[in-house]
Amino acid sequence: METIQTVQVGNVIIGGTTPVFIAGPCSIESREHIIEEAKALKAMGVNLLRGGAFKPRTSPHDFQGLGMDAVKYLYEAKEITGLPIVTEVMSEDHIEEMLPYVDMFQVGTRNMYNYALLQKLGKVNKPVLLKRGFSATLREWQMAAEYIIAGGNDQVVFCERGIRTNNDITRNTLDLAGAVMMRQMTHRPVIVDPSHATGVRSLVGPMTMASVAAGLDGVMIEVHEVPDASYSDGAQTIDYDLCRTIIEKAKKI
Amino acid sequence: METIQTVQVGNVIIGGTTPVFIAGPCSIESREHIIEEAKALKAMGVNLLRGGAFKPRTSPHDFQGLGMDAVKYLYEAKEITGLPIVTEVMSEDHIEEMLPYVDMFQVGTRNMYNYALLQKLGKVNKPVLLKRGFSATLREWQMAAEYIIAGGNDQVVFCERGIRTNNDITRNTLDLAGAVMMRQMTHRPVIVDPSHATGVRSLVGPMTMASVAAGLDGVMIEVHEVPDASYSDGAQTIDYDLCRTIIEKAKKI
Amino acid sequence: METIQTVQVGNVIIGGTTPVFIAGPCSIESREHIIEEAKALKAMGVNLLRGGAFKPRTSPHDFQGLGMDAVKYLYEAKEITGLPIVTEVMSEDHIEEMLPYVDMFQVGTRNMYNYALLQKLGKVNKPVLLKRGFSATLREWQMAAEYIIAGGNDQVVFCERGIRTNNDITRNTLDLAGAVMMRQMTHRPVIVDPSHATGVRSLVGPMTMASVAAGLDGVMIEVHEVPDASYSDGAQTIDYDLCRTIIEKAKKI
Amino acid sequence: METIQTVQVGNVIIGGTTPVFIAGPCSIESREHIIEEAKALKAMGVNLLRGGAFKPRTSPHDFQGLGMDAVKYLYEAKEITGLPIVTEVMSEDHIEEMLPYVDMFQVGTRNMYNYALLQKLGKVNKPVLLKRGFSATLREWQMAAEYIIAGGNDQVVFCERGIRTNNDITRNTLDLAGAVMMRQMTHRPVIVDPSHATGVRSLVGPMTMASVAAGLDGVMIEVHEVPDASYSDGAQTIDYDLCRTIIEKAKKI
Repeated sequence: METIQTVQVGNVIIGGTTPVFIAGPCSIESREHIIEEAKALKAMGVNLLRGGAFKPRTSPHDFQGLGMDAVKYLYEAKEITGLPIVTEVMSEDHIEEMLPYVDMFQVGTRNMYNYALLQKLGKVNKPVLLKRGFSATLREWQMAAEYIIAGGNDQVVFCERGIRTNNDITRNTLDLAGAVMMRQMTHRPVIVDPSHATGVRSLVGPMTMASVAAGLDGVMIEVHEVPDASYSDGAQTIDYDLCRTIIEKAKKI
Repeated sequence: METIQTVQVGNVIIGGTTPVFIAGPCSIESREHIIEEAKALKAMGVNLLRGGAFKPRTSPHDFQGLGMDAVKYLYEAKEITGLPIVTEVMSEDHIEEMLPYVDMFQVGTRNMYNYALLQKLGKVNKPVLLKRGFSATLREWQMAAEYIIAGGNDQVVFCERGIRTNNDITRNTLDLAGAVMMRQMTHRPVIVDPSHATGVRSLVGPMTMASVAAGLDGVMIEVHEVPDASYSDGAQTIDYDLCRTIIEKAKKI
Repeated sequence: METIQTVQVGNVIIGGTTPVFIAGPCSIESREHIIEEAKALKAMGVNLLRGGAFKPRTSPHDFQGLGMDAVKYLYEAKEITGLPIVTEVMSEDHIEEMLPYVDMFQVGTRNMYNYALLQKLGKVNKPVLLKRGFSATLREWQMAAEYIIAGGNDQVVFCERGIRTNNDITRNTLDLAGAVMMRQMTHRPVIVDPSHATGVRSLVGPMTMASVAAGLDGVMIEVHEVPDASYSDGAQTIDYDLCRTIIEKAKKI
Repeated sequence: METIQTVQVGNVIIGGTTPVFIAGPCSIESREHIIEEAKALKAMGVNLLRGGAFKPRTSPHDFQGLGMDAVKYLYEAKEITGLPIVTEVMSEDHIEEMLPYVDMFQVGTRNMYNYALLQKLGKVNKPVLLKRGFSATLREWQMAAEYIIAGGNDQVVFCERGIRTNNDITRNTLDLAGAVMMRQMTHRPVIVDPSHATGVRSLVGPMTMASVAAGLDGVMIEVHEVPDASYSDGAQTIDYDLCRTIIEKAKKI
């Protein structure tokens, strides 16, 4: 049995005896949308609300998210539902502005090696969810966390989101064994993002069960009332019913 | 719920309602060794006995296995314990000689693209365990099975054993999501080899639980009475006690 | 300056002071076709004729080549033009039958780990062109050659044909630095197949120049009178005019 | 013949009719060191001076570079030798401070996806050398440049520095074909960093020849008076004599 250094986000403990369920839409699309979704997710047992405000997109000409407006919508959803919130920070310049609103900063896969951003998050009194880089080794991932921890903030949770391979059908390759190894090596909580890791709706459930059975600390899932109508990542997004079923089944493992 | 085309190996059904446990040493080291191990594995609930007779080694100067002698020892172990046996075939020329002894032919990762071998196995009336190539795509893996099936033998079980990535600590990257996808695509049984997929003893247990929780059809594990004394792959081999614990825990999922 | 152990194929030296040009169609399509192409290639300075007789295809339902008939057509083309010939052997059972006709056996990327085949080629008195496996490390590639050499046949030439990565536009990733390293490590000739390595017609020329400038021992190129009409691999096949231009330019480096 | 949009750095044209040689130490170690090296490089025909001031290191506990002091030493070296200078920028906050000193900003492989940094560089009137991410696809790399160009700065040069694979001997895998493809796709200059791409001293020369022969626009090489004494990346750094020999040989192609 590993002793894991737990991380508290609002009233939620990550790394404790029960896995944590983080869910929400890929992109926050409107004030109404995120509030309605937050209520639905709360009702089905989700612990933390996620939602993209600043969106890192491969092309600068694609939808870039609603920015600070979306951060504030997320905060409203939190005030109504009580769900703590986590959202991605993409620029050193945004940390201060986002600080009063978010419960946890997410560093996305594209910024895992952005050491200037990590160092600034080391000076902040909020937990950080650190996603693994596209092809980061475990040691590089661990050392990226060290850039945060060395600054004084040791509230770090790792999130495995799949790595790049020559795979043909899944979007990325979920490295579940690497996630477990990371937990054994760092004694810190590790969660899994089965949505980005697979890019395939029918794999989100099985990979959630696998993550929980492997002893990991939770999952982060993309959910939307009408997945195929979502602004981004529709193919890997699940609907409310499936999310509810997955959570119920996972809690029995 | 998937409908899976089950494969029968001796009295064991793969792809049915309960996961199958295949275990044994990486290399068969002697007649006594494999018989003793078979008894121990039988006692702890293992369903099929595996053991390397012909060993594909990177260097021709490394231990190449005991060959047909080992196949016969494996057969003796089967007669004593009742456990059906599976072992790797590496040459087109060996199929006929091995045929009377084995219950299931294994095609190793190095020979997944050896179409001449696959075609000959398509003419044989014994099931085939087809491991995934080092960097095979799911489509290539599926089509490799098609080389067997097109010949008339549709008793094929897939075995995911990890793919090549730029990983630094695990030996390979277990593609659990790919394994589940493969099962959804082919409607045939898919099992996992957590020993080769990770190369790390402490990951064999967690990846077994994950495989079973994800709905896969079984696992194949390297076990040795004294792992560090085994002729090959010691670092990923587990001992009898750990194997027993893993099987007990997995059966509860 | 490396001292390289040269390999003689018919009257052609590979690994000597000038790079060798191997060319021909992906698949041999008819007796007339290969004879006409051989004449055209001979006229433009090609040194060795290649052509696929047994074709390893991902699907068993795709065109598998004309087999021994094609080997004999290739032999006729050789008798007419004087160009030595190289073609792929896919089965242990074919070696003996092909032996009187071919000047050099090719082991394809799918069979680099087929140790039974390699061992049988170690007993043959003909040179072997050993392609690199899809994701083979340099050490594995070197050790695959060792399976041939240990049997008594040290007439081995390596052929780099690109490795698997998460590339999006090229078919594979040409590992030119790995090819040069391989030559430094083994002191044996190394050539490049820019057609399979890139899968893109416009890259065949630049990669040929690069291979020659890097000091490698030759290239093997897919050529067809009407590339888009070829039975396989049209997108990476070049026509006669481009082949002539590339050879002329490469000889000036 | 491609028409390439040239980029001018000081008095040097990148993308014109002759390849450009960029050289310098991995890390700037002292004022004296960089000035002496700049003089030596100038004398052997190097066109641009490179040197690491801010160093992105995997561990926060490793040497992080001399920062702005090193930028100023580099500037002094430029005033003495006339060589324009290029150095890496790692933080959005450093751009303004570095602006008066540098002739070209380098974005390192770790920051290729740092869109906030790229957007700020789009507002700057200095050229940018954009290295490829560890496992970036060509499309992602092209779109990263688009983040700069969309801001109004179209003075972008791409630098291929090797991608991540399961290679065993070279540090990364130089994707020379990808670099040529990138040039064909974007009509912008593409150079190669054979030092980081290979990590092996004996491959720097051959890969420089290959890059020039393939029609690329230049190379960036790590050079140090005493390579094994350099603060970082010694194994891939070459000495003055080898650098001189490589440049002379490359200019003849």
